[in-house]
Amino acid sequence: MSEIRKNFGSDNVSPACAEIMAALMEANRGAVPSYGADGWTTALEAELRRVFEHGELVMFPVATGTAANALALSALVPPFGAVYCDEAAHIHNDECGAPEFYTSGAKLLTLPSENGKLSAPALEAHVAAGRTLGVHKSRPYALSLTQATEWGTVYAVDEIRALAACAHRLGLATHMDGARFANALVHLGCTPAEMTWKAGIDVLCFGATKNGALAAEAVIFFQPRMAEEFARRRKRAGQLWSKARFLSAQITAFLADDLWLRNARAANAAATRLADGLTRLPGARLLQPVQANELFALLPEAVAARLEAAGFGFYRWYMPGMAPTPEGMVPVRMVTAWDVRPEDVDALLAAAGG
Amino acid sequence: MSEIRKNFGSDNVSPACAEIMAALMEANRGAVPSYGADGWTTALEAELRRVFEHGELVMFPVATGTAANALALSALVPPFGAVYCDEAAHIHNDECGAPEFYTSGAKLLTLPSENGKLSAPALEAHVAAGRTLGVHKSRPYALSLTQATEWGTVYAVDEIRALAACAHRLGLATHMDGARFANALVHLGCTPAEMTWKAGIDVLCFGATKNGALAAEAVIFFQPRMAEEFARRRKRAGQLWSKARFLSAQITAFLADDLWLRNARAANAAATRLADGLTRLPGARLLQPVQANELFALLPEAVAARLEAAGFGFYRWYMPGMAPTPEGMVPVRMVTAWDVRPEDVDALLAAAGG
Amino acid sequence: MSEIRKNFGSDNVSPACAEIMAALMEANRGAVPSYGADGWTTALEAELRRVFEHGELVMFPVATGTAANALALSALVPPFGAVYCDEAAHIHNDECGAPEFYTSGAKLLTLPSENGKLSAPALEAHVAAGRTLGVHKSRPYALSLTQATEWGTVYAVDEIRALAACAHRLGLATHMDGARFANALVHLGCTPAEMTWKAGIDVLCFGATKNGALAAEAVIFFQPRMAEEFARRRKRAGQLWSKARFLSAQITAFLADDLWLRNARAANAAATRLADGLTRLPGARLLQPVQANELFALLPEAVAARLEAAGFGFYRWYMPGMAPTPEGMVPVRMVTAWDVRPEDVDALLAAAGG
Amino acid sequence: MSEIRKNFGSDNVSPACAEIMAALMEANRGAVPSYGADGWTTALEAELRRVFEHGELVMFPVATGTAANALALSALVPPFGAVYCDEAAHIHNDECGAPEFYTSGAKLLTLPSENGKLSAPALEAHVAAGRTLGVHKSRPYALSLTQATEWGTVYAVDEIRALAACAHRLGLATHMDGARFANALVHLGCTPAEMTWKAGIDVLCFGATKNGALAAEAVIFFQPRMAEEFARRRKRAGQLWSKARFLSAQITAFLADDLWLRNARAANAAATRLADGLTRLPGARLLQPVQANELFALLPEAVAARLEAAGFGFYRWYMPGMAPTPEGMVPVRMVTAWDVRPEDVDALLAAAGG
Repeated sequence: MSEIRKNFGSDNVSPACAEIMAALMEANRGAVPSYGADGWTTALEAELRRVFEHGELVMFPVATGTAANALALSALVPPFGAVYCDEAAHIHNDECGAPEFYTSGAKLLTLPSENGKLSAPALEAHVAAGRTLGVHKSRPYALSLTQATEWGTVYAVDEIRALAACAHRLGLATHMDGARFANALVHLGCTPAEMTWKAGIDVLCFGATKNGALAAEAVIFFQPRMAEEFARRRKRAGQLWSKARFLSAQITAFLADDLWLRNARAANAAATRLADGLTRLPGARLLQPVQANELFALLPEAVAARLEAAGFGFYRWYMPGMAPTPEGMVPVRMVTAWDVRPEDVDALLAAAGG
Repeated sequence: MSEIRKNFGSDNVSPACAEIMAALMEANRGAVPSYGADGWTTALEAELRRVFEHGELVMFPVATGTAANALALSALVPPFGAVYCDEAAHIHNDECGAPEFYTSGAKLLTLPSENGKLSAPALEAHVAAGRTLGVHKSRPYALSLTQATEWGTVYAVDEIRALAACAHRLGLATHMDGARFANALVHLGCTPAEMTWKAGIDVLCFGATKNGALAAEAVIFFQPRMAEEFARRRKRAGQLWSKARFLSAQITAFLADDLWLRNARAANAAATRLADGLTRLPGARLLQPVQANELFALLPEAVAARLEAAGFGFYRWYMPGMAPTPEGMVPVRMVTAWDVRPEDVDALLAAAGG
Repeated sequence: MSEIRKNFGSDNVSPACAEIMAALMEANRGAVPSYGADGWTTALEAELRRVFEHGELVMFPVATGTAANALALSALVPPFGAVYCDEAAHIHNDECGAPEFYTSGAKLLTLPSENGKLSAPALEAHVAAGRTLGVHKSRPYALSLTQATEWGTVYAVDEIRALAACAHRLGLATHMDGARFANALVHLGCTPAEMTWKAGIDVLCFGATKNGALAAEAVIFFQPRMAEEFARRRKRAGQLWSKARFLSAQITAFLADDLWLRNARAANAAATRLADGLTRLPGARLLQPVQANELFALLPEAVAARLEAAGFGFYRWYMPGMAPTPEGMVPVRMVTAWDVRPEDVDALLAAAGG
Repeated sequence: MSEIRKNFGSDNVSPACAEIMAALMEANRGAVPSYGADGWTTALEAELRRVFEHGELVMFPVATGTAANALALSALVPPFGAVYCDEAAHIHNDECGAPEFYTSGAKLLTLPSENGKLSAPALEAHVAAGRTLGVHKSRPYALSLTQATEWGTVYAVDEIRALAACAHRLGLATHMDGARFANALVHLGCTPAEMTWKAGIDVLCFGATKNGALAAEAVIFFQPRMAEEFARRRKRAGQLWSKARFLSAQITAFLADDLWLRNARAANAAATRLADGLTRLPGARLLQPVQANELFALLPEAVAARLEAAGFGFYRWYMPGMAPTPEGMVPVRMVTAWDVRPEDVDALLAAAGG
C-alpha cells in the first residue's frame, strides 16, 4: 500500500487524474489554431451540449473557479447592479473581491442561511425592501447559488426550482457556482440538465479542478443571449489561453467514461465514511449533514489537537452565520478529494480515536 | 520525416515541449499545499533568482501573457495614472483593454516608433507636455517596453539603459513585456540580468508559453517594494491557481538545461532562414530587420496568394505607424516557433517561389 | 405667519440659507482663475484650519455627500481592500454603490449595530477572522463611522476615540461621514477638533448641504499624506468645478458667524420638540433616542395614516438590523431641517393627535 | 467704464449671468421634493423638448462637463468597448481619464485631424482594421464629436450628418461634446435639432457653464432607450444633487429669452474682433479659422511676451497633431467668454501692438 494521505485541508491539494494528464499528452501534437479555434474546443462544446441535453448552450473554459464565477457574474450584472448570495458564499468570502473587480464594482448583497441554502421568501423580502429606495440602491440583477453549498449540503432540485422561479419573477438571472457540481449531482442522482437549466439556472460555473483536473472550469450559458461579447470579457481578463486546446482537452477527458461522476462518488463516499467514524467519537457531532465531499463538525479540543499532532491537515473553521462554539469544542472543516482512499480515512479516524 | 508544418501564423500555435510535459507528469504526485505554498513554486523562485543573479526578486506565475502584463501594470500605475508605450504595443493593440481593466481605468499613452523601439527624447517631450496641464492629465507612472519588440526587432542593452534612465529621471517605473524575452536574449548574447535590472528594468513579464510552455508566464519584480499586495491582486483577478505546482513546474523545466535558450535559438534561426529565402524573391523586401523570431515583409501579391493557396498560414498585417503599402505588394507577418524545422521553412520558400 | 411646512421627509428638501445665497451673489464678480485657484478657495482652506484648529489639514470641496464619501474612501482603500461600516451605513445602503465605483471595486464589510454605533470589540473580531484567510480575503484598510449616525444617535467623543484607536491598532484609516456633522457637534457641545482628529479621525466628509447650503461638502484630510493625488481623483470623477469659487463661497458663508451651528441647533431643537410631542401619543414610542435632527419611532398605524392624509411628508422606514414591527404599528423616520419652525412641528403634532 | 478684463485664458474664468443668479434666488423658496422630483426639473425637461423639437428626449442635469461626457459615454460603451474621438479631444486630453473611470476601463481610440474635425473615411478605415483582430481588440461602440471643436472650428451640419451616418452604419452610437454648443449653433445659424438628432446625434452633452451658468450641464438622450438606468449611473457617480432644483433652474434660465444664444453671439463676436486685430500684427497668423469663441494663432515671441508683461491671460498652447512651430513664433490659445466686451479686446490688441 502506498503512503497514507493525511491532507484533508481541501480537495485542491490533490493531483490531477491520470486520465486527464493522458489527454493533455494526447493534445500536445502539431500546430493548431490558437485562442480556441482548435478541434479540442469544438469537441468540448459538443460534448457539453450532449451531457447537458441542451443544443444551444455556449461555453467558455477558464483556468480557475474564481475567474469562472467573476466572469459569469460580470455578464449578468452591470456595474450599478447587485447580486444576491448566501452570507457564506465563496464569491463573497473567498475570492478577494473578484466579483467586484470583474463587474466593475457591483454589490454583493448577502442573505443569511443556516446551512448554505437560500430561501425564496427571504430573497423576495430583501428585493422588495431594496426597491423602495429607487436610484439610491444598486438594482439587483442576479441570484447566485452554490451547489454543493459552502456548508457541504446539497440543494434538492425542487429547492433550486423554487429559488430560480422566484428570481426570474423578480427579474434576476440565476447563477450557479458549481465548484463541486459533480459532488452534488451524484448525491441527488439526477441528470445535469435537471439540476441546472430545467430547474431554471441560466449560467453555470462547471468545476473540474477540485474533482480531478489540473486547472479547468467552464462557464456554461444556458441562455446564449446572456453571453453577448463574453469572449471579449474573457480575453480582456487575461483568461483566454493562447494554447486553448490544453484547457478544453482536460474537460473533455473529465467527462469521458463518466470520470467526473466516478471521482465525485469516491470523494463523497470518503466524506461519508469520515462522518460515520467521527460521529462515533464521544462528544463529536456534525454541524451539517454530509451530502457531498465536505464535512463540518464540532470536535472535542483534544481530538483536534491529536489529529494535528499526528500531521493530519484540516481547518479550524469559522464562517459567517455560525452559532457560538461550546466550551472545549472546536469547529472543523475536512474535505475529501477524488483520490482519498478508505485507508486514508481510516488512518485519520484511528488517530482521532487516540 | 514527419509532416511539414505550414502554420507560420504565430508561435502560440505550437504544442508544448516534451520536457515541459514531462515535468507536469512529474509534478502530478501526492497531495501538496495549494495556492503556491508548494515545493515547485519555492524552487522556481530560487531558480529565477539564480538565473537573473538577483537574490531579492519576487515572482508570481500566471497562465497568460495578457494577465502578466495587465497585473504588472496594475501594480505600477494607479487608476488616475498613465503608461507610456509604443503605438504598436501589444498592451495597447492586442489585449482587448486588459491593462485598462486591471488598472481600473489608467490611460495608455502611445508614442510613435518606426521599428517598435521607443526613444528617450520622445518620451521626455511627451511627459513634459503632459505636465503643463496639471490635474487635467492622467499622471504618467510607468514606461512599458516590449523586448523583442512588436516589430521583431531587439533593443540593445544600451538602448534599454538609456530609456530606463530617462524614465526613472521622470519618476516612471519601467515594465518590460517579455513575451519573446528569450528570443531577444539569444540575439543579444547577453545575460538575463544585463537585459533587465542591470539596465534599469523594474518589472519583467517573463514569457514561456510562446517558447515551449503549455501556459505559463512569470511576473518578476526586481524592486520587491513594487510588489506590495500583488498576491491579492493576482487572487482577485482569478489568476491564482489552486494547484499552483502545475504552473511553477512548467517554468522550472523551461529554465532547466537551457531549454528556453535552445528553443529561442531554434526559432530565431528559422526566422533568419525564412528572411534569407524570402528576400531572394524578386520584389520582396523586409520591413524590419529580423532579429528574433518574427518576420515582417512586403511580398508581391502573387507570392502571398501562392502561399495561401498552398495552405501556409501567416497574416496580412497592418499595424499603427506603418508606411503606405506600394501597389501590388502586401505586408505580411510570419512567426517561427521553437518547433519550426529547416525543412518547414524550405517548404514555404519553395511554395513562395512558385 | 407664512405657510406651514409639512415636509419632514428629509433635510435636503429645504432651500438654502439666505446668508449662503448672498455669498454666491457676492462671489459672482469678475474673472478669476478657474479650478480652485481662486481667492474664495484659498480663504476657505484657511478658515477650516482655524475652525478645526489644525494648521496642516487639506480640503477639497465637492457638490454632493455621496461624492465626498466615495472620493474619500478611494484615497484610503485600494481596489483589493475593504472598508468596515455599520450595516445601516449610508455608504452601504443609499449611494447606489458609489464607494465600490470610486474605489474600483473595494468591498464594504458590514458590522451589526443596534443604534448605528459600531463597537471596537466587534471590529477587532471581524478583522481577526478575515486575516486567517490571507489573500482569499480583501484586506481591510479603513473604518467608516457616521456622525450623527444613520439612526439619529451621536457617538460620544470617547466612543469615537476608542474606535479610532482600535482601527489604527489594526492598521485601518478612519473615515467619518459627517453629512450631519454640525447636528452631532452641537449635541455634544465639544469642539470640531475634539470630535475629529483629536479623537483619531483621519478623514472627514464635512456636510453643508443638508444644513443650509445649496450644494457643498468638503473632504477634509487631517493626515495630508493620505491626500496624495487627491486633486486628480476629484478631477477624474468630474467633481472639480471649473467655477470653483461657487463651491468654496458656500462653505465659507456656512462657517461665518456660526451659521452652521445655529442652523444645527434649530434643527435639533425641532426634532426634540417633535419627539416630545409624539411620545405623548398613546402607543407611540421612539426607536432610538433623538440626539440630532432625525427621529425614528413606532407610531400606531392610525396616526401614520392620519398624518399622511393631512399631507405631512415622512417615510415608513425599514433599515437593516431593525427588530420586527409589532402588529398595528408602523416604523417611521422624520427629519427636521434647519428651517423647520416650532409652529411646523406643532402643526404636525396637532394632525397626529387626530 | 468698469475695469478692463484681461483674462483670456478660458471661458470658465467668467462669473455667471445675472439672469441665472436671479433664477437661483427665485428657486430658493420652500420645501420641495429632492433628487429631481421637483417642479424646476420637470419644467426644464419640457423646455428642452421644445427647444430641440423632440418630444421624447430625456435629460439629466449635472454640474460639470467632464461628468456629463464621462457619464454619457458610460451609457454607450461597455467596459470592453472603445470610443473613437479626435486626438485633440477634451475627453482624451483634459479630463484626467474620466471616461476610462466612468466606463470602467473602455478605450479611447484617437483619429488624427488637422482642425478638430473627424472624417468618415478615416473612421471607417480604423474600425475595419480593428475588426480583423476579433476579441483581441476592444469593440468600438461610439463616436464622439466635439462641437465647436477643440480647435475652435465648427462642423457644418452636413459634416455631422456624414459622420453620424457612417458611425451608425458601423454600429456605433454618436456622442456630441457640446461644451461650446451654443457658440457653434449661432455660427451655423441652424436650429438645435438640425445640429443634433436630425443630423444623427444620439446623445448630447449640452454645456451651459462656460456660457454663463454657475455650474450646469445637461446630458440629453435623443434615443431614450440608451438612457436605461442612467439615473442610477448618475447617482452612483455622486452626480445627483439632493437639491436638484438648483441645477435645473440654471439651465431653464439659460434657455429663457434666448439668453444662451445672446451670450454665445457676444463671445463669438469678441473672438472675431480679436482675430481681426491680431492678424493685422506683422508676423501673426491664425492656426485655424475662428468660428466660435476660441482663437488659435501663431504670434511673434515679442508679442506674446508683451501681452504677458501687461498682465493679459492666455495659454502658450501645444496640442496633439500640431505642426512644428516656426522659429521665433509661439502658438497661443485665447478664449473669449460671454462677458468679454469690445473694450476688453481692444485693450489686449493695444497691448499686443506695443
